[in-house]
Amino acid sequence: MHQRNLSMLVDFYQFSMAQGYFQNGFQDKIVYFDMFFRKIPGDGGYVIVAGLEQLINYIENLHFTKNDIELLRSKGIVDKGFLDYLRNFRFRGDIYAMPEGTVAFPHEPMVTVRAPIIDAQLIETMVLLTLNHQSLIATKASRIVMAAQDRTVLEFGARRAQGADAAIYGARAAYIGGVAGTSTVLAEKMFGVPSLGTMAHSWVQLADSEYEAFCSYARKNPENCVLLVDTYDTLLSGVPNAIKVFTEVLLPLGHRPKGIRLDSGDLAYLSKAARKMLDEAGFEDCKIIASNGLNETVILSLIQQGAKIDIFGVGENLITSRSAPVFGGVYKLAGVEEDGEIVPRIKISNDIAKISNPSFKKTIRFYDRTSQKAIVDLIMLKEEEVPQEKYTISHPQYHWRSRILDNFTTRELQVPVFMGGNLVYTPPKLEEIRRYAATEVASLPEEICRLVNPHIHLVDLSQKLKEMKRELLKSEKMY
Amino acid sequence: MHQRNLSMLVDFYQFSMAQGYFQNGFQDKIVYFDMFFRKIPGDGGYVIVAGLEQLINYIENLHFTKNDIELLRSKGIVDKGFLDYLRNFRFRGDIYAMPEGTVAFPHEPMVTVRAPIIDAQLIETMVLLTLNHQSLIATKASRIVMAAQDRTVLEFGARRAQGADAAIYGARAAYIGGVAGTSTVLAEKMFGVPSLGTMAHSWVQLADSEYEAFCSYARKNPENCVLLVDTYDTLLSGVPNAIKVFTEVLLPLGHRPKGIRLDSGDLAYLSKAARKMLDEAGFEDCKIIASNGLNETVILSLIQQGAKIDIFGVGENLITSRSAPVFGGVYKLAGVEEDGEIVPRIKISNDIAKISNPSFKKTIRFYDRTSQKAIVDLIMLKEEEVPQEKYTISHPQYHWRSRILDNFTTRELQVPVFMGGNLVYTPPKLEEIRRYAATEVASLPEEICRLVNPHIHLVDLSQKLKEMKRELLKSEKMY
Repeated sequence: MHQRNLSMLVDFYQFSMAQGYFQNGFQDKIVYFDMFFRKIPGDGGYVIVAGLEQLINYIENLHFTKNDIELLRSKGIVDKGFLDYLRNFRFRGDIYAMPEGTVAFPHEPMVTVRAPIIDAQLIETMVLLTLNHQSLIATKASRIVMAAQDRTVLEFGARRAQGADAAIYGARAAYIGGVAGTSTVLAEKMFGVPSLGTMAHSWVQLADSEYEAFCSYARKNPENCVLLVDTYDTLLSGVPNAIKVFTEVLLPLGHRPKGIRLDSGDLAYLSKAARKMLDEAGFEDCKIIASNGLNETVILSLIQQGAKIDIFGVGENLITSRSAPVFGGVYKLAGVEEDGEIVPRIKISNDIAKISNPSFKKTIRFYDRTSQKAIVDLIMLKEEEVPQEKYTISHPQYHWRSRILDNFTTRELQVPVFMGGNLVYTPPKLEEIRRYAATEVASLPEEICRLVNPHIHLVDLSQKLKEMKRELLKSEKMY
Repeated sequence: MHQRNLSMLVDFYQFSMAQGYFQNGFQDKIVYFDMFFRKIPGDGGYVIVAGLEQLINYIENLHFTKNDIELLRSKGIVDKGFLDYLRNFRFRGDIYAMPEGTVAFPHEPMVTVRAPIIDAQLIETMVLLTLNHQSLIATKASRIVMAAQDRTVLEFGARRAQGADAAIYGARAAYIGGVAGTSTVLAEKMFGVPSLGTMAHSWVQLADSEYEAFCSYARKNPENCVLLVDTYDTLLSGVPNAIKVFTEVLLPLGHRPKGIRLDSGDLAYLSKAARKMLDEAGFEDCKIIASNGLNETVILSLIQQGAKIDIFGVGENLITSRSAPVFGGVYKLAGVEEDGEIVPRIKISNDIAKISNPSFKKTIRFYDRTSQKAIVDLIMLKEEEVPQEKYTISHPQYHWRSRILDNFTTRELQVPVFMGGNLVYTPPKLEEIRRYAATEVASLPEEICRLVNPHIHLVDLSQKLKEMKRELLKSEKMY
């Protein structure tokens, strides 16, 4: 299942360009591409990077079969030398990337590719697709988990996901972003994301009565008894029946109830009333799980209303990132090697925010040595030395505003993943990624984590990089 | 690749319920479930059904491996009899479905499952996931194609899709909905969706000049020469260079240019100016392709402004159905067989629109015999006879308003797909589905196809079904 061949998940123009590069004798021309985004989806304050492991799997498996070659030939990609080259193709480049779970900000290279031009182009579609999708969902999950404060969030969205991969890898990304589990069993089978769930309305509807349905479920699942109480009338029927079954069936079997689930109606009102009924019956330990149309805004509102909900099950709004379903990562040329030297390239645009950062770069995060909080990021040329003592950082738009940093520690955000086509990185276990993502978010000032109008984390460019960018803009020949 | 095992793409509660049904001796209990939606995404007037072929593949391949059984056992699904049952599980039910490309309206069963309860529950997640995703994208594509009027629309969204399946099956669904091709080569390999594309900005950036880049491309691809003209300055550099290369390189090679592509800036203004320049240079036959942030609203606006665009390339807004990224299909119990008789079931809800239609049903579309246009749909009990001559149809909300139909033809919308677990349906070729979808849309009155505030197509319930629903609501014991 992990071995699915997605090698042809490539935009067609990559092949027409690659053939052209090959015919021009450029197959060994080394180029640099950065994958980055310009805007955080949903106006959040930060992004959680995810999807690298699947990108690695793709690149390790990237090859073109006889059938692939035939298809390309039938479509006018007919250069014999190029098709032979594709037949033996293996990725030969270097890739640097932010590990999954890293907090990222706009314009920071999440992935940097240094590779022969054909290699760099052929992987573009999947670099973007994989990182864009999983980072979108991990980021959305992090927002929802943030809204839920110390309550548990579960991912319930498979049935509304945009295809099977969106369900499976979406569950993985949501777990990285902080949800505690998923309804999708395949996500447990493939990645170890804990899967869980109890009953649907059909269970209740098929029994002779709601009471019978609960009795039967409690007898079969005494250790993990969660009852869905909203099939008929939550407060007049569901909760009283649940309490009756907890008392008459579950306790005599030697078990305490695990929870009740509300899946419709006014969740604030119903949860408070249900909590009271459960407490009065001596089931203070019985959790209340709520689902139905939840997202970070609704969860915040429920908590603000004093809803007594312990666990939030979030479906379509998480698995599609419904309020902002596109992660706008782009993949831009940053440089070309000529005789071993990097010649920087820039993508100019009438839209100033779309002008890219040239050359081979690294991103450094500065932390306050005392509070351990992230204070600023700095994008610099790869060859530049990282400041150790003092550093003057200026506002990216208002250059007259600057600030001298001292008492800091620094960390480089990307790590080498492939070198010369060889994997030099061991992807961490998913649990480890999830813990790392949590420490990443915990290292942010709370103003950055705010769900509405977050403070913008400062991402500066080094003086050298700024000067290079200015020179390139000046010298760029337009005609 | 088509054989990927998604059998465990199931919500966990299906297994806990299935075990319960098994232990209760219900494994041969026959139930009826309907998959339908309540609201057309994006406030459109109709939905295009898609995804059935993938659902068929899933069901034909549905089985549980030793590893699957072990995973379930580790999660507390420990009933030996049930696990043995799963080990030998094959779907045994009947499935009726609307063929792909069918136009559907709210509350009409797109898929109806008559099956043993365990079978019906285990397929729920994938019935929903598959139909929801592809119907979402086919419907969005149909809207965009409608907006483009007789111009061509291409699907360019892979890099922003929500996972690989969203790119691949999204391209398939978009093709059903009417786009003419995709950028994703794998969609051609798997389904025969025509894939295409020419060059990215990197091709232009890597050459010594835009002119050189165009020359080189034209020489390598004289038969399919489309040049991307916005890397530097569209009107001062891109179009003049393209015209120069068309004249100096392409014509001498004996070829006419295929097109130029605009990927940024004011597409209305630029396309008009570019058209003028191309025409004046004698390239009236050179198409103008535009991309960048397009959707049905932008396309309508461009056309209204007189933009000279022949081909629209649509990316993220189509492949994620960005403005409405969730197709809210649901799967509801409609009946249970007791001693061979169907006992209807209803899902009641405080929200009246959420009350389901009971029993085993069929949906009939009435066409005006003269205009051949669809006039009304009727959901009736499966056993009821389809009206042949006259039929009095009443408004679903305002019952005092009725209308006598005559001079009509009728068509039943669902076809048998599985009978007793055996596939009895041959999925049509993709081209055929696409043509059928086009005739389906053409059979709708234009008021239904309107992008904004479309007329609502009338879906009535037969008298018998209405009475059954009324009786069930009256008799439903709540406590």
